[in-house]
Amino acid sequence: MGRLLYVMTKPCGIFITFEGIDGCGKSTQAVRLCRKLRRRGYDPLFVREPGGTVVSEKIRRILLDRKNQITPLAELLLYEAARAHLARTVIIPALTQGRAVVCDRYYDSTTAYQGHGRGLDTRLIETLNKAASDNVAPDLTFILDVDYRTSLSRRGKVPDRLEKESRAFFNRVRRGFMSLAKQKRVVLLDSQDDIESVAAEVWSRVESLLPPKRTPRAR
Amino acid sequence: MGRLLYVMTKPCGIFITFEGIDGCGKSTQAVRLCRKLRRRGYDPLFVREPGGTVVSEKIRRILLDRKNQITPLAELLLYEAARAHLARTVIIPALTQGRAVVCDRYYDSTTAYQGHGRGLDTRLIETLNKAASDNVAPDLTFILDVDYRTSLSRRGKVPDRLEKESRAFFNRVRRGFMSLAKQKRVVLLDSQDDIESVAAEVWSRVESLLPPKRTPRAR
Repeated sequence: MGRLLYVMTKPCGIFITFEGIDGCGKSTQAVRLCRKLRRRGYDPLFVREPGGTVVSEKIRRILLDRKNQITPLAELLLYEAARAHLARTVIIPALTQGRAVVCDRYYDSTTAYQGHGRGLDTRLIETLNKAASDNVAPDLTFILDVDYRTSLSRRGKVPDRLEKESRAFFNRVRRGFMSLAKQKRVVLLDSQDDIESVAAEVWSRVESLLPPKRTPRAR
Repeated sequence: MGRLLYVMTKPCGIFITFEGIDGCGKSTQAVRLCRKLRRRGYDPLFVREPGGTVVSEKIRRILLDRKNQITPLAELLLYEAARAHLARTVIIPALTQGRAVVCDRYYDSTTAYQGHGRGLDTRLIETLNKAASDNVAPDLTFILDVDYRTSLSRRGKVPDRLEKESRAFFNRVRRGFMSLAKQKRVVLLDSQDDIESVAAEVWSRVESLLPPKRTPRAR
């Protein structure tokens, strides 16, 4: 007996990250991508780093609180702790269920900020990035590039602990992101451009990775 | 012209740690040792792990809160973050000034709890212990050994997140501490014994490391 089976949400299992200096438009683009995926029938999970779990959000509060003086190594370890918790309890289970996961920052931010920005040992960072992510790399990473002036103009009025760093720091971080853009999974986009054209470019790259559409079928 | 120079506190610069499972008597012995050092004219710094700085105490609250579900790797990274901050901003400056530093738990606890107890990769733990401590090892470590039953009887009424672990967990941790006791800097003491005799043994070991007494001298 044939009957119609409607697949309400499409399994996907791809992991997409957005990276770049503060004010580069990551969050805006990540949210737009999720909206578009939903309209196309997917069930994306949107998370941000650091954060995304009760414990990781508590770690986030320590990291971003302007009043906290944190040494560079302690800062690195706190980011990795938040990541380890988010990856193991949220990101990997969602990917295993076949969901698309869209993450606002991931371990490339650690390489850029704590490695290039703070000057911490890149081998230690690589070891920790691998451990904290359970060796699960993004399938696709968008690095959104803006200059320092644009970045400043797009931020909130009260900078958090990281945002109040110097122009020289952000230029080192930006160069760090540039050096990461050589990897195959990474797409570097000029985010000085208007939101619409960046979003269109993001969508065309994501669309090519999505599994073919399923249509209602009889069985 | 000769004049008397009184040295009010004696420089020392030794680093002493107390280790063992919860309820083994570490804190009691560490506090007693500090009191004795003070009576002898030294100026010891007493710290506890995790904690000892504003940021590390915030991390401590996350780690010990019974309501938090924390993955083993995130737990490890949080302990190391708290340690990195304490070592760099408190312990190492105090040792550099020639003070005696007495620490209630240090990186041997991480090897025992997160390595032997949780079963995390011991090489990763060693890498992190070295990084977080800036390669500053204790001069003298007391591991206070008690059995599980005694440990339980000495704890507070409401166990914290770690204390509510199983008997099997604590037995693995205890064996972990035993395996660490082979190192030259470590003294293993049976802490089932009464407080006084353990304190006497601690003092005799510490005294042998202290620099000779300074007396008022003319110059």
